[in-house]
This record gives sequence, C-alpha cells and structure tokens, in this order.
Amino acid sequence: MDPRVHEHAEVLVDWSARIEAGDDVVLSVGPDAHELAVAVAETIGERGANLLTTYGSGEIERAYQRAHDGDFDEPSHELALFEAADVYLRIGGGRNTSATADVPAETRQAYRNARTNLREARYDTRWVSTVHPTRSLAQQANMAYEEYADFVYDAVLRDWESLADEMAKLKDRLDEGSEVRLVGPGTDLTMSIEGRTAVNSAASVAYDSHNLPSGEVFTAPYDTDGQVTFDVPMTLQGQSVRDVTLNFEAGEVIGFDAAEGEDVIEEILETDEGARRLGELGIGMNRGIDRLTDNILFDEKMGDTVHLAVGRAYDACLPDGETGNESAVHVDMITDVSEDSRMEIDGEVVQENGTFVWE
Amino acid sequence: MDPRVHEHAEVLVDWSARIEAGDDVVLSVGPDAHELAVAVAETIGERGANLLTTYGSGEIERAYQRAHDGDFDEPSHELALFEAADVYLRIGGGRNTSATADVPAETRQAYRNARTNLREARYDTRWVSTVHPTRSLAQQANMAYEEYADFVYDAVLRDWESLADEMAKLKDRLDEGSEVRLVGPGTDLTMSIEGRTAVNSAASVAYDSHNLPSGEVFTAPYDTDGQVTFDVPMTLQGQSVRDVTLNFEAGEVIGFDAAEGEDVIEEILETDEGARRLGELGIGMNRGIDRLTDNILFDEKMGDTVHLAVGRAYDACLPDGETGNESAVHVDMITDVSEDSRMEIDGEVVQENGTFVWE
Repeated sequence: MDPRVHEHAEVLVDWSARIEAGDDVVLSVGPDAHELAVAVAETIGERGANLLTTYGSGEIERAYQRAHDGDFDEPSHELALFEAADVYLRIGGGRNTSATADVPAETRQAYRNARTNLREARYDTRWVSTVHPTRSLAQQANMAYEEYADFVYDAVLRDWESLADEMAKLKDRLDEGSEVRLVGPGTDLTMSIEGRTAVNSAASVAYDSHNLPSGEVFTAPYDTDGQVTFDVPMTLQGQSVRDVTLNFEAGEVIGFDAAEGEDVIEEILETDEGARRLGELGIGMNRGIDRLTDNILFDEKMGDTVHLAVGRAYDACLPDGETGNESAVHVDMITDVSEDSRMEIDGEVVQENGTFVWE
Repeated sequence: MDPRVHEHAEVLVDWSARIEAGDDVVLSVGPDAHELAVAVAETIGERGANLLTTYGSGEIERAYQRAHDGDFDEPSHELALFEAADVYLRIGGGRNTSATADVPAETRQAYRNARTNLREARYDTRWVSTVHPTRSLAQQANMAYEEYADFVYDAVLRDWESLADEMAKLKDRLDEGSEVRLVGPGTDLTMSIEGRTAVNSAASVAYDSHNLPSGEVFTAPYDTDGQVTFDVPMTLQGQSVRDVTLNFEAGEVIGFDAAEGEDVIEEILETDEGARRLGELGIGMNRGIDRLTDNILFDEKMGDTVHLAVGRAYDACLPDGETGNESAVHVDMITDVSEDSRMEIDGEVVQENGTFVWE
C-alpha cells in the first residue's frame, strides 16, 4: 500500500475528526475508496473507537431513487444511527462522477427533502468529507491516475497546524474589518462583513472545518455592490460554465452574463430570492493545490484564488441566533487573483496578486 | 446485467424478506457484490421501503480488529440502527474468503462478545443472508466463474413455494415422530426428537428460514446414541477435514476420529460441554444444488445429504421457553445419503438412498 494512504488516514482520524477511544464512528466508503477505508479502519481500531462502515454508491442511490414512486419516507433507522453517532467520515471515490446523472430533478429533490432531519443529525456529528484518488476523479481532472494521486496527497498531506496559524492572520483581519473590496480584471466589488465571523478552515472539526483537504478562510458577506468576473472554468449541474460576470446593487444580482453556460447561471439565480445574494466569500490558501481539477473540494481551496457563492450562508459565520442569507442553493464560483488583482479590507490592501501583505 | 441478478434480487426482497412499503431495510454489501446490491436497491425502491447500505468487508474488519487493543465496546450507534431496523439483508461476496485468517482467535472472540446485543437485535429483524457469485467463491468451489454463477442461480432461483410444500411432508413426519435413526456406511445412529419442532427452511422469514438459498428441514435432536460418519470433505476453521466419525452415548460424544483434521475436531469438541452434544439434524432437499462447493450455505442444503451439527440448537425447534443444547459453537458436518443409506422415524423408513417414501 502507498504509505501516503496511511498518512491520509491518520490526518483524517486525528487532525480532522479528533477521534478518541469510545467514539461511535460511521465511515462511508465509496466503491473505489476501499484502500483508504482499510487504512482508516486500522487507525480507528488503534484509537479504540467503534466502527460502522456504510457503502456510498451513486449507482445504488440511482437505482433506488429511480425505482421509487417519489413519495419518500424519513428513514427512521438511519436517523437513529446518526443521532447515536459521534463522528461521520465520508470517503468519496466512485467509478463514475456522473453515476446519478439520469435521476429526475424532482425525484432528487423529494429524496433530499425526506432526509432533512437526517442531514441535520449528520451535521451535528464531528463530520469530515474527503476523497480517495480514483480513476474516475483523475479522468474528471484530465490527469493520469498516478499524477492525480500525487496531486491529491500534495493537497491533503499539509502541515495543517502551520497553515492554520497562517490563515488565522487573515481571519483576524476579516473579523476586525467592516468592508471587503475585490479589484481585478472585470472585477470591482465591495461587500459588508461587519458583525460576521470568518472560519479558519483548517481541515479539522476543531476549526469548524469539515473538508479534507481544506485551506481557505471564509465568511458570509452582505450588501454587495459592483461587478465580479469568475474566470476559472467549471462544471455546474453537468454543464460547462466560463467567464461568468455578476453585477450587484444593494446586495442583489441585477445583471449577469457568461461566455458559456449562461442558462445554467440564470437557472441558479432564479431558484429563490436568496440565490441572487451572496452566501460566502472564501479565500483559497492551500498552496499544495497547484492546479484546477474541476472539483470544487479542491479548486476553491487553491492558493491565489478567491471564490464567492450565491445562496445559503454558513451558520458558523453568523452571530448566535442570527440567520444569514437563506436559499436552497449554495453555488461557488472562482476567480484567479494571481495577476492584476487585489483585496482590500476597509481600504487597506491585504492581498495583492495572490500575495498577502504579511508574506 | 445478467437477468438472473434481477431475479435473485426479487426472490430475496419478496419471497425471502417479505419487504413492504415503509420497511426500514439495512443492506450489507460485500466488496464484490455491488451488482446484486444495485438490483436489490432497485427492487427495494419499487416496493417503497427505506434503504441504508452498509459495507461488509473482511479486510476492513481485519484491519480494525488487529489494530484494536482487544477491549472492545458495544457500538451503541450500530445497536440503535438495528433496533430501529425491520429487515437486515446480507449479501456476501468478498475478494478473498480467507481475508480475516490472521486475526488472533482471542481478538475475534472478544469482538464477538462485545457484539452480543447487536447480534440479537439483528436476529430480531427479518434477516436474510445470501451471496453474489464472485471469483473468490468460484475459486473456493474449484469452479470457473461462469460455471459457478450457473451453480448459484440454479440453487437460488427455485420454485420455493412448491419446494416448501414438498418439505412440509418431512416436517410433518418429524413433528409427529419421537426417534430418528440414520443407517449408512459407518453410520448407525439414533436420536430423540420427541417434543421438538422441525423448521421447513424454505428460504423465507415466513418459514423461520434465513438463508437464500435454503432447502432443508432441520430439528434439534437429543439423547443421541451410536456412530455417525461424515464422508463429505469440508474446510473447518481454515483446515481440511475428511471422514470424521463420532461415537455417542447418552447424548454425548465419547469417541471420535478423522482421516484428516482430527485436531480441529478435538478443538471443537473441547470448546464447552454443549459442543459434545448435537444441536441440529438437517436434511438437505434442494436438488438445484448438484455438487459440493466447500461452502456450508450450499453444501448442507444439497439433496441426498444429511447433516448434523454439534453445539448450539436453534430456538425455533424448541417448545416455547425451553432452552435446548447451549454452546459457543455450532459446527455442521455432512454425510452423503445417496447410496446404502436410510433414515427411519419410529422404525418406519422415510428416506432410502436419498429418495423419500412419497417420491
């Protein structure tokens, strides 16, 4: 076994999920993630925690959902499982990233709706989502398999403690600041962050961070004004999207266009009222991610990038009891800030051409 | 997909587990059983039941158990899952039937002991165990993969209703009878069945039968006297065993030998007091199983065979509230009754050279 598989398992169990003796752990294993699952099971055994493995197969979900009449129940056994669990680890890694492509949208939505309490119970655990490098993910990234495995381990096997210290500097600036301004080619955007708390997303539940890899600092902006252009190409809802421009006034999108995929953007923005407002401003700081792979788990964490999401805001960024922007969607779009770009907080330049002022 | 995979799924869901709308189903999927699991998920979706899939991997169990210090907890999340579940379906099918061979016996036992309540909760569901034909199982049977798949489907895709009617005839004889006598080469054995109830094991929870395939009638004998020879070779605890002879007096083994594996037999018989008494008499009646494959799920159901188990008796065979033979083991051994053999109930021949008197 590649020794990096064991290192990945240890980062996941110890740094990310903080697993200890007696913890009740649910481990979801993708069909091609077996190897990492074995290493994670070994590490969980060493820590003396309790293990149940579930099988996370898109093909099984597709077969089940398509065959069902669409009037889904809440699965009380699965709810009981997650209500009793302390930790939920999800290892993605299937054989086809489009495995559920032909499930009708309304079926998918009905299935999601029946599982609202289940999702909440899962979010109440110390949950962490990661991926095992698979042929299918390598293909999506236009990379050879070995090359892709190197890419994944460079992103995952960081010195997270030191990256967390680095990211804390940006978090402090954002927490103290009132207004962020982004300037770049096709971009001049201001947004308020007054009263909001940034998350130092250091790939650990100890930092309110639930992705491995992570490596971003994010907050929940509002009162957005101006224009932003997302020059990083991506796949949204199965369609290619390029060079999206959004125009904001008083917090809301008042105009948009795209070189490709404009109809997808329109569909997203029309989902509900909240879909026309920002839910997230995120700054990628993981320099182990050195290229785009059309996978949001990695792309949005890449150094020299900034992303904004329309739709739902994360609770961790909001004052206790306050609700932020609400929406059924949360769609991230990314802009490259390595050239001709800067980010200001309250008029002070914090990042210029990807480099932070303290670097 | 081989159409027999869908037929297998339908037999499992409808005939065996009697799944209906709203049932909470746990489906355990072996690493190489994905294809059958997809078909089962589709059928469960059609029936409107709720599905959680777990991953039944010997390699994960091995890694976990070997890494653990051996002081296992009861996994309360898994217990909550099975206490809330209506149905448990297990689809065996790994990549190596010896995947857990190097887990120390005491670790295995400690793990089992910590999971006693869990096992009971699982046995309180409508549970059914089956296998998907895999390369690994074909290899264990010394068969080509396609040949093995044909073998499995011949055993599984029976007219179960009509086999149940057939087996009911034997069950009635056993329920009315007091004493069974087996006679054959190296065998002349009598045992009492007075007051015991035979199970018509027709591969359905409706018949107290939890294996697919099944196709046997079994009961819980006692007061055994005489000698029995098991001429069907098999693997017990990873070792080959051949031509075991047991001598009984007043219900207990007083002597034994074997052409091969005598030490394994000795170890089994010395487990505890109950291991020296019979727990089961079973008569194989599945004529779709036409050969031995060194897999007890199939071998003991084969027509023209009779098996006896030393150790634990099944509750379904006992009068309400009565405990039968108790033991930590239940080890089946098989004898071929196709030639020079007969079974008598209260002095009347019921089966001769494999043929029942009503055939």
